Amino acid sequence: MPPAESAPAYITALDVLDVRFPTSESLDGSDAMNPEPDYSAAYVVLRTDDADGHQGHALAFTTGRGNDVQANAIDALAPYVVGRSVQEVCADLGGFARSLVHDPQLRWLGPEKGVMHMAIGAVINAAWDLAAKRVGKPVWRLLGEMAPEELVGQVDFRWLSDALTPQEALEILRKAEPGRPERIARLLERGYPAYTTTPGWLGYSDEKLTRLAREAVAEGFTQIKLKVGASIEDDVRRMRAAREAVGPHIRIAVDANQRWDIQVAIDWMRQLAPYDPYWIEEPTSPDDILGHAAVRKGVSPIKVATGEHVANRVVFKQLLQAGAIDIAQIDSARVGGVNENIAILLLAAKFGVPVCPHAGGVGLCEMVQHLAMFDYVAVCGTLEDRVIEYVDHLHEHFVDPVRIRNGHYLAPTMPGLSAQMHAKSLDDFTYPDGPIWASRTSPPAAVSIERRRVVVVEGF
Amino acid sequence: MPPAESAPAYITALDVLDVRFPTSESLDGSDAMNPEPDYSAAYVVLRTDDADGHQGHALAFTTGRGNDVQANAIDALAPYVVGRSVQEVCADLGGFARSLVHDPQLRWLGPEKGVMHMAIGAVINAAWDLAAKRVGKPVWRLLGEMAPEELVGQVDFRWLSDALTPQEALEILRKAEPGRPERIARLLERGYPAYTTTPGWLGYSDEKLTRLAREAVAEGFTQIKLKVGASIEDDVRRMRAAREAVGPHIRIAVDANQRWDIQVAIDWMRQLAPYDPYWIEEPTSPDDILGHAAVRKGVSPIKVATGEHVANRVVFKQLLQAGAIDIAQIDSARVGGVNENIAILLLAAKFGVPVCPHAGGVGLCEMVQHLAMFDYVAVCGTLEDRVIEYVDHLHEHFVDPVRIRNGHYLAPTMPGLSAQMHAKSLDDFTYPDGPIWASRTSPPAAVSIERRRVVVVEGF
Repeated sequence: MPPAESAPAYITALDVLDVRFPTSESLDGSDAMNPEPDYSAAYVVLRTDDADGHQGHALAFTTGRGNDVQANAIDALAPYVVGRSVQEVCADLGGFARSLVHDPQLRWLGPEKGVMHMAIGAVINAAWDLAAKRVGKPVWRLLGEMAPEELVGQVDFRWLSDALTPQEALEILRKAEPGRPERIARLLERGYPAYTTTPGWLGYSDEKLTRLAREAVAEGFTQIKLKVGASIEDDVRRMRAAREAVGPHIRIAVDANQRWDIQVAIDWMRQLAPYDPYWIEEPTSPDDILGHAAVRKGVSPIKVATGEHVANRVVFKQLLQAGAIDIAQIDSARVGGVNENIAILLLAAKFGVPVCPHAGGVGLCEMVQHLAMFDYVAVCGTLEDRVIEYVDHLHEHFVDPVRIRNGHYLAPTMPGLSAQMHAKSLDDFTYPDGPIWASRTSPPAAVSIERRRVVVVEGF
Repeated sequence: MPPAESAPAYITALDVLDVRFPTSESLDGSDAMNPEPDYSAAYVVLRTDDADGHQGHALAFTTGRGNDVQANAIDALAPYVVGRSVQEVCADLGGFARSLVHDPQLRWLGPEKGVMHMAIGAVINAAWDLAAKRVGKPVWRLLGEMAPEELVGQVDFRWLSDALTPQEALEILRKAEPGRPERIARLLERGYPAYTTTPGWLGYSDEKLTRLAREAVAEGFTQIKLKVGASIEDDVRRMRAAREAVGPHIRIAVDANQRWDIQVAIDWMRQLAPYDPYWIEEPTSPDDILGHAAVRKGVSPIKVATGEHVANRVVFKQLLQAGAIDIAQIDSARVGGVNENIAILLLAAKFGVPVCPHAGGVGLCEMVQHLAMFDYVAVCGTLEDRVIEYVDHLHEHFVDPVRIRNGHYLAPTMPGLSAQMHAKSLDDFTYPDGPIWASRTSPPAAVSIERRRVVVVEGF
């Protein structure tokens, strides 16, 4: 491959930017646990001294406050990557990922969860973006054309062997290998099915909800999603309105964003059952494996989905082992990057559970489409009951934005992970000094949800 | 109570310090996953304008690199606390804790796990330190003398109701209420049983191990702990040597610090079984509830213990529901402060599982003794099979250090949470500018565990 023969190059810098969008002003993205999110990115750029000029771009997504903490955590990783050989990193991304995840001091901050793990995931994803650009392929295709043995080498099997061994992973990948070219061709022709959350934000009026739901169906979507969990009366009314708007053949998923305890989830969903919800997403704590299993039993045949806040492969492993979920919702920016998501895709394939990725936010659609397409091409080998979430916000800020046609994600063709943002967007939305924020008199500083007396003191 | 009648006072500042101890130089604290820790504290001070002059001190513990990330996360909480009424915060610490934990934007960074959750825990603990100083009591006694209803008000029951309701919590506390005065008297007289990890660090020679083990027995300890998990041959030899040194009646716990997969844990422990290990601690991932349940089944009658890396009450809940642990090891600085630990103590009491706190590090012994003593006084009501970990490092830096007599923690009598460090220690060990670090030519910057070429670039 060309990069292996190029002159030695090194990673020269890891840049981090705190980028925030004032989405709370329109209630886009509002749900039962996130009433006023400002969608934000702790944005990372890996720079090199290679003559090819490629950089690695990726991001960790947050909902506003705390994006500085996330950016600081990424910045703390600079000494781990700056000075490394570009060729060596790109030739062994599995080893690169493990060297960050297993650092014996950093791991205390997780292990493998929360801010530090998302920071590591962002840097790993930036390395994948760089590696894919160097070979001139979108990441989904780079992965989808890798040998099964090389894919197995991307995975950290620590703590997985009771559910998935390297040999089993290899068998899953080998089984899917013969059909790869056809599936790649199909992706390039028709894309990957999407569903849309755009109609269902909790802050939207019924009129807006039903109008957007009808538009979604007209645009070719066969599944929409509604946020629920704040008020059962409102949810019954909204669910009924949505069902009437889209008719009986469109799937309507609902999403409680962790709002409920177990019995509340079961009781609530029984009241929505007459309107045929397809899945209930995040009914309770993302850490509650046994709780999800109990909810699943209690709401059957409504499906249970979760994953956007599932911290790592060990929690996904157990959700699958416990029969706690019908649908695994990977997220591109929550876990340890592409590598850990390969592990999760393999686990889901082992247990026969469809992966329907979480997306939205900032750049999550752009990044996660690569993982879903790889899953189809080289892991699960099917599109049956598979859909990627789609939310039509903020794509205009990306150099290679997702393209939706007839309810499908078109396969990206530009090299990389599609996470790169326009330089002007990065400049405009940098917090707190970019022009978008500098012009706002009341930036979203800390506000207690209990509305106690809070004074923001200069200097913090 | 006096504070309620004092003149209105406000929290005026939240100070954060990055304090690190170069413990890696002596291999104190070395284990199978932490070969070279530099025990560190992201140290927090809540300052007020009250005439009483009290401040709230607490810390989040880390093992070196990343302590800056942890400190940054605490700093990001300043706008949430600065300007609040001291009287209101101290009168409703449960509400204060929930206002931090439930912030709808910050929670994306967890939820309730990792860096952000530990930061919140440190601030909550600092508020408890402040509140206890204001009423002139050590925290264990402040808690141990609170009405059951007020204790229930400290707990965030979200996601717990399938295992513990507020009413059940109240019943547990009421049942223990009559014996409180006797138990307080007993604590003041004899203290709380301890076990010691000092002999068993992985980096110690067999000679040092057996010498320290004999010394521990001579000092009155009835339980010691050995780190295991790097080499089965070494562990068998060390376990045999320790058993020969202490005789058959001293309990020897072993601690793998998450090193193993499930079957490895079971096989390894079967090889140590002839030397009668009392518990196996952290056999695998702290997130692996089902894995711990499988290990427990596989190694019985050896007990299974975990908790120092258990991210929150929801994971503890499941470890108890699944029958995955024999011993719950709370940590004072991992979860959402005193409040979440009250929830965990109540859960453990509900399931009849003894709590044997994790300690060591920096200040963890100082803080967690308050929780264990409160547990004895007002929750579980017994000392049977209860021990607090003791490690004899770094106590000299604390204003109110733990006092060990005849293998027991003596009950603290100074007001507060005992987390306050001497000003000189804070100055000396501040990283990277304190004199201890400034004099070191090679501060412990990032080193890849794979020993790849890493260059630390000026400016990071």
